Amino acid sequence: MSSVLELIRRKRGGQRHTAEEIAWLIRGYLEGQIPDYQMAAWLMAVYFRGLDAAETYALTEALLRSGEVLDLSAVPGTKVDKHSTGGVGDKTSLVVVPLARAAGAVVVKLAGRALGHTGGTLDKLEAIPGMRVDLTAEEIVAQARRTGMVLAGHTATLVPADKKLYALRDVTATADCPPLIAASIMSKKLATGADALVLDVKVGEGGFLRRREEARALAAMMVALGRQAGRPTAALLTRMDEPLGAAVGNALEVEEAVATLKGGGPPDLRELSLSLAAQMLLLAGLAKTAAQAHLVLEEALATGRAWRAFQELVAAQGGQVAALEEGLPRAPYTAAVRAPRSGYVRALAARPIGEAVARLGGGRTALGQAVDPAVGVILYRKTGAYVRRGEELALVYGREKEKAEMTAHALTAAWRIGQSPPAPRPLIYEVLS
Amino acid sequence: MSSVLELIRRKRGGQRHTAEEIAWLIRGYLEGQIPDYQMAAWLMAVYFRGLDAAETYALTEALLRSGEVLDLSAVPGTKVDKHSTGGVGDKTSLVVVPLARAAGAVVVKLAGRALGHTGGTLDKLEAIPGMRVDLTAEEIVAQARRTGMVLAGHTATLVPADKKLYALRDVTATADCPPLIAASIMSKKLATGADALVLDVKVGEGGFLRRREEARALAAMMVALGRQAGRPTAALLTRMDEPLGAAVGNALEVEEAVATLKGGGPPDLRELSLSLAAQMLLLAGLAKTAAQAHLVLEEALATGRAWRAFQELVAAQGGQVAALEEGLPRAPYTAAVRAPRSGYVRALAARPIGEAVARLGGGRTALGQAVDPAVGVILYRKTGAYVRRGEELALVYGREKEKAEMTAHALTAAWRIGQSPPAPRPLIYEVLS
Repeated sequence: MSSVLELIRRKRGGQRHTAEEIAWLIRGYLEGQIPDYQMAAWLMAVYFRGLDAAETYALTEALLRSGEVLDLSAVPGTKVDKHSTGGVGDKTSLVVVPLARAAGAVVVKLAGRALGHTGGTLDKLEAIPGMRVDLTAEEIVAQARRTGMVLAGHTATLVPADKKLYALRDVTATADCPPLIAASIMSKKLATGADALVLDVKVGEGGFLRRREEARALAAMMVALGRQAGRPTAALLTRMDEPLGAAVGNALEVEEAVATLKGGGPPDLRELSLSLAAQMLLLAGLAKTAAQAHLVLEEALATGRAWRAFQELVAAQGGQVAALEEGLPRAPYTAAVRAPRSGYVRALAARPIGEAVARLGGGRTALGQAVDPAVGVILYRKTGAYVRRGEELALVYGREKEKAEMTAHALTAAWRIGQSPPAPRPLIYEVLS
Repeated sequence: MSSVLELIRRKRGGQRHTAEEIAWLIRGYLEGQIPDYQMAAWLMAVYFRGLDAAETYALTEALLRSGEVLDLSAVPGTKVDKHSTGGVGDKTSLVVVPLARAAGAVVVKLAGRALGHTGGTLDKLEAIPGMRVDLTAEEIVAQARRTGMVLAGHTATLVPADKKLYALRDVTATADCPPLIAASIMSKKLATGADALVLDVKVGEGGFLRRREEARALAAMMVALGRQAGRPTAALLTRMDEPLGAAVGNALEVEEAVATLKGGGPPDLRELSLSLAAQMLLLAGLAKTAAQAHLVLEEALATGRAWRAFQELVAAQGGQVAALEEGLPRAPYTAAVRAPRSGYVRALAARPIGEAVARLGGGRTALGQAVDPAVGVILYRKTGAYVRRGEELALVYGREKEKAEMTAHALTAAWRIGQSPPAPRPLIYEVLS
């Protein structure tokens, strides 16, 4: 086997690694024989030179094999997973897991936490009193067998090399590199043992990838990796320039998910949840066409079956179901964001809203920080709306009066108001499978 | 000031750093606030994106300012320094320092040690019994005042950031990056306080840069840096495909330098030493034309003044001058490299010879290893010579019989023998100033 230095030099020169070389590199890094600084140099060389399909698959495999793999063989049915690359106000997992379950799918989804301007499903779930997200592998399997659905955190034994590598990428400006993203996501997803996978790849300044070509390339890469691993995978390219739905903030987002599961909720959240769940039903063989899947899912919403499935999920993980009906706590101070002039909302920037909620205490700027579930923002007027000067555009919930007011004031700039309505744009650009 | 992450990201994207940003980066790295892994990522981004002239100058300055600067203001005369990018059999510093001194220049040259296939001036000097190369700043200044010349090692307080950065580049495949090489060399040279500088930039497989365009770009970069720092700088692009001179190995090279200083020595070593020293005289204002400088220098060799200057230098640093006349110790076992067939030597590869001498104990494969001064190789037939089958091409000196013989056998492949003579090539390709 070559030296690390030789592998860095080769990648730097645009040469390909063998699967054995990549496995050796990842094992050596996890075991501490390869230091952070050599891995950092390799990652930056990869950023410039890329990894081809075979190398990306080898990296995915090497990350996957660095830890345990969740064994769902004891769980009957086709297990379908769902993953989003992350955005602002994206609470679709809270809707999609019980929704797909209500339509017959078995869904074991292991999710992440908030970081930076994007929220995290686990933090949202923890806004529900009593809700446990740190299940053991045994608990995950037992709950999946009993209820057909799980929405919890990754266990410590899954993909340890990805955790270590991700932390390094985060501090070396090598996070936004498509093959590294694809291998990271897919190794985690393959480690959770699902039979099929639906990806929500966000496009726009509120997500990770701003340009559609980049997002499509990443989606295609992941679909190919899933197929190569024998797991049917589909990907939706979806718009993430303004926040999804009206609520941003953990407890507020749970309430919005509940409203959606009861058949209401904001139209964009409803549309995206239905489309993701429909792809899950298709991959699980529970529907023959997307239209048929949509019908089944809309019925699950209309009849209350999806909402009952969510209550069952919350109860299974120790959450207080009654709290969902009573309403979750909201931070004590509110401040309104008001329109500085009359006109059409031509754009609403997701990122400053996500960042504002994080600064209010609802997110994280570094790993391990505690999160305040009760802060957030409710958006009243989104892109396309006509607003009058002085009208409320949004309401900020904060722990401190002054901070809420300052946040509301600063957020005014997130709305771009003009004299003509913007051209409508689709929420879902395309589906790759 | 931006974060390190932001600077890595900017360089990754091909943006320019300000001088303040580079100074902040280098200071933070030296002081340990910026970890190796972030610096490694930045270095690899620099490898791909480069540094422009202003950034390279800022890096040079930042490295220079990380430590003390040798104050030669108490030394009368124009101080001229000489630097080589390193090659095999390159003992020109041993010749050039006393030669330029004998022609009136003041030369304070701080040199390095052997690493890899290339030798180091300090190791060569230490082959002379008693010779001290670890002078303090005070000793350097005192000796320069007294004798007008010093040939010693870098003091610990000069360019500490370059030492730390160089060690990191060495293990992250970012050593062979022209602006990083230029800043490293020039920061060291500027720290030694010389008024003018002559660079010997080697081209060919025995040196660091194999292609002439690369070497010219590096040389031009360093000449510009020197000029910007107010130190007239000239650079010679010189051929380094076969070893320079006939001797490779520390004591053997000292003997060859002595022979050259006495007016003899191999023609290539003599030519290069005269040309480097001539540039030094021109920059110091001690000659008006290169032709005039050559005349003065040839006289210094012919009259024994250069040789006496070397004896004075050795004596000043505690070396036994008598040992130079008596001959230095040679390793006990010799083995001949013999021509496998008759014909013309079309090429003689420097690198395997340098590596062989290092393996015999005459060099280093890692920092800090001890060096055996008595081993080495004497080359009898170099490029262009006609050789007969079985004729001695070279003689290997080793500590152990078997090792010497094995080395001699393996070295046979370093000579490429063909049926026609090779086209003659110049030793000095061009002079940049």
